[in-house]
Amino acid sequence: HARKVPDATGHPKLCVVMVGLPARGKSYIAQKLAFYLNWVQVDTQVFNLGAYRRKLLQDSSSAQFFHPNNQEARQKRRLIALRALEDMFEWHAQGGMVGILDATNSTRKRRQLIVDRCRERDTEVFFVESVCEDDDRIQETIKSVKIGLPEYQYMNEPQAIADFKARIEYYRQLYSPLCQKVDGLKSFIKIVNVGSSFLVNRLEGYLASRIVRFLMNVHIKQRTIYLSRHGESEYNQLQRIGGDSDLSERGQQYATRLHEYMSSQKVTDMKVWCSTLKRTLSTTATFSNVKSWKALDELDAGECDGKTYEEIKEENPTLASQRDLDKYYFRYPRGESYHDVVLRLEPLLFEIERTGDVLIVCHQAVCRCLLAYFQRIDNIEQKLPYLEVPLHTVLKITPDSYGCKIESVKLGPESVSTHRPRATPTPPPSNEEKEQ
Amino acid sequence: HARKVPDATGHPKLCVVMVGLPARGKSYIAQKLAFYLNWVQVDTQVFNLGAYRRKLLQDSSSAQFFHPNNQEARQKRRLIALRALEDMFEWHAQGGMVGILDATNSTRKRRQLIVDRCRERDTEVFFVESVCEDDDRIQETIKSVKIGLPEYQYMNEPQAIADFKARIEYYRQLYSPLCQKVDGLKSFIKIVNVGSSFLVNRLEGYLASRIVRFLMNVHIKQRTIYLSRHGESEYNQLQRIGGDSDLSERGQQYATRLHEYMSSQKVTDMKVWCSTLKRTLSTTATFSNVKSWKALDELDAGECDGKTYEEIKEENPTLASQRDLDKYYFRYPRGESYHDVVLRLEPLLFEIERTGDVLIVCHQAVCRCLLAYFQRIDNIEQKLPYLEVPLHTVLKITPDSYGCKIESVKLGPESVSTHRPRATPTPPPSNEEKEQ
Ligand SMILES: Nc1ncnc2c1ncn2[C@@H]1O[C@H](COP(=O)(O)OP(=O)(O)OP(=O)(O)O)[C@@H](O)[C@H]1O
Ligand SMILES: Nc1ncnc2c1ncn2[C@@H]1O[C@H](COP(=O)(O)OP(=O)(O)OP(=O)(O)O)[C@@H](O)[C@H]1O
Ligand SMILES: [Mg+2]
Ligand SMILES: [Mg+2]
Repeated sequence: HARKVPDATGHPKLCVVMVGLPARGKSYIAQKLAFYLNWVQVDTQVFNLGAYRRKLLQDSSSAQFFHPNNQEARQKRRLIALRALEDMFEWHAQGGMVGILDATNSTRKRRQLIVDRCRERDTEVFFVESVCEDDDRIQETIKSVKIGLPEYQYMNEPQAIADFKARIEYYRQLYSPLCQKVDGLKSFIKIVNVGSSFLVNRLEGYLASRIVRFLMNVHIKQRTIYLSRHGESEYNQLQRIGGDSDLSERGQQYATRLHEYMSSQKVTDMKVWCSTLKRTLSTTATFSNVKSWKALDELDAGECDGKTYEEIKEENPTLASQRDLDKYYFRYPRGESYHDVVLRLEPLLFEIERTGDVLIVCHQAVCRCLLAYFQRIDNIEQKLPYLEVPLHTVLKITPDSYGCKIESVKLGPESVSTHRPRATPTPPPSNEEKEQ
Repeated sequence: HARKVPDATGHPKLCVVMVGLPARGKSYIAQKLAFYLNWVQVDTQVFNLGAYRRKLLQDSSSAQFFHPNNQEARQKRRLIALRALEDMFEWHAQGGMVGILDATNSTRKRRQLIVDRCRERDTEVFFVESVCEDDDRIQETIKSVKIGLPEYQYMNEPQAIADFKARIEYYRQLYSPLCQKVDGLKSFIKIVNVGSSFLVNRLEGYLASRIVRFLMNVHIKQRTIYLSRHGESEYNQLQRIGGDSDLSERGQQYATRLHEYMSSQKVTDMKVWCSTLKRTLSTTATFSNVKSWKALDELDAGECDGKTYEEIKEENPTLASQRDLDKYYFRYPRGESYHDVVLRLEPLLFEIERTGDVLIVCHQAVCRCLLAYFQRIDNIEQKLPYLEVPLHTVLKITPDSYGCKIESVKLGPESVSTHRPRATPTPPPSNEEKEQ
């Protein structure tokens, strides 16, 4: 898949090795990172060693399994790590780019094993360590995600918490954090106390810098992202794409309702962002301190701007069917593809990740790209261009344990629908099939 | 100047405090950073304490001035620091955003003084420390830039080197590097051994993250950036802007000459980047492994795309004169401004900074934006849109002590000129005035 190689002369095969005691957010970080990379079309997969272990041991590993003197268990854990590595190499061979080994990888020996195996396979290694000694944070993590693990299904809460804490202490006995003296030649980032500081060592290569840039911008504080399209526009009513028309009367009403809704949310210190186009500027006109971003502008339909889908199909049927075949990568002549939009949104996404509460008012295709990221949909190329983002509806996005909760709030009033369902592969010439 | 505020709810007033022994690249980093920020329209100014000192002492400070026991000199240095701070505050009051205090700031006391004064003025503080114990690197810096300082004009080379080394040792006696234990609440980046590792502490705010992102991507290894426009296109010959035409015959010849020239440069492992438009793809067609970036596409002239300047002026004289008035910020209807292009080039610039030898084939406006960065022109808004970047010419850009050397290599063949000189404020209706 040539389109996916981000940098022909770079190193497309990377192994990211998570490091850290249990309950340090390794899986959280691994999953978030994987989703971000997949979003920008860098094929990424997480190999979670806990999942391998649970499969092998049929969900029954109590803390004793992690006791440093349990030789049999140590042997098993080594085999699990090797199995995951092999799976990753196979996946690399099939075109995968970034494999993330999600495990504690807490001993030097284990990390050296990984480095050696990767060297044999010409695979770069980048370590991501999470160090955290904030006891409240860890207690919170154990309570919210650890006591629900399959291995604790037959324990009560205090038992499970005690068992998990024992597991942490067993790991601690053998744990060597990455350190510059010993690991000076390794490439790594150490995330200290949930991002209050970072140590970055020997940052090299396109993928690793991208990863670091991302990790340095995310935070886990509570906040809400409100995502909305502009109110219904005159062009929406005419079913024309693109353009720079103003709001319809109903669109104006939506602007009012949006303002009322946001006031009811009682967010202090909320940012408001829109695009440079009239319809988002008008939708946010009643807010103060609105920042207008060119990066939020609608997907540029190039030569097809201002037309209806029917006109496009009539004037250029090949073009229309090419788009249906590969809507994600299809680039309008002199315009953009969904993939182009994702790439231009990347710096803005970093801002979203970095910031607190924010209301983002943009456009259908741009909403789809952002929603795909927060919703962590799989198979982006297939699904992203068809995500439903109705007009006059706010998506309220709040982070939870590993992903986001997304609530769809229909504010109204009624509006046209601009959603075009996926065309069936061999379109029969019926009436229902007509694109709207 | 509302357009310049990057983030209305952020902290537009920042004081960046350089920290480090002499010859650690502080001024180099400060200047590079300042230029980058100005390029993205974040008003930045460097306050170099060496310059204040030289003015006060009339260029005569030998190492003795820096002796820890020289009480009188210490008093003077404190006054100099306070003067620079005052100047920075005044500049902030006039709309400046990032003031960079370029000095050793090597004692805790001095840094605390700065923090306290900034707090009184509601100014955020971000420290940038450079630590380097690579003796060869420092020797090299002393030889290449330090012995030429005004204070050494009457010394020979060995004397000057010895004096500068004595200065370093005097500073070392009082130097406290930033450390997480003591400075844990401060916001800082520590750059260790020319970027081989970084420590980032309490990164907060839009500007500081942008600064960190930049500093983590720059390197000082030798390399060359070759910048070129595409070969002459059919539209160039017709004096039409934009479009997606192919090369003229002469443009094809340029492509051949460019390939020959690059071969003669004997660069191993060179990257080749172009835009997504035919004329740059054709210009680089004979290279292998070319990466095509949408970010390198020509400034989008929106509704004026494909027209000649004369047609634009005829159809919409107001538009044409608006553009002449403020060419940098002028955005074509449904198109882009130079400023928009700079912003979309920013992620690509990070790639350029991160990478080694590279040939970039793009377009007039895009070349202007990149050239402005490397040439570090002042008064960007006024000058950038008028930089001359002729067709069929390669700009060979190599970094030197504090900036870049830029060599213009005319490869030919002859081509049309697409340069439009600045319109005079009150255009007399003469013939010379006509835009080409
Ligand atoms: N950098 C971080 N440091 C500490 N905690 C974090 C960090 N990032 C996220 N978290 C928290 O960690 C929680 C999830 O923990 P996670 O399951 O990822 O831990 P883990 O390190 O994978 O543990 P285990 O070794 O048991 O698999 C999240 O709910 C989040 O609040
Ligand atoms: N991060 C770095 N660490 C060490 N040297 C660097 C770094 N970045 C750039 N340099 C080198 O430093 C040289 C310039 O030194 P510079 O004048 O900036 O030192 P300085 O710290 O400002 O010294 P002084 O305290 O005398 O003003 C450049 O030529 C460059 O090669
Ligand atoms: Mg985990
Ligand atoms: Mg200096």
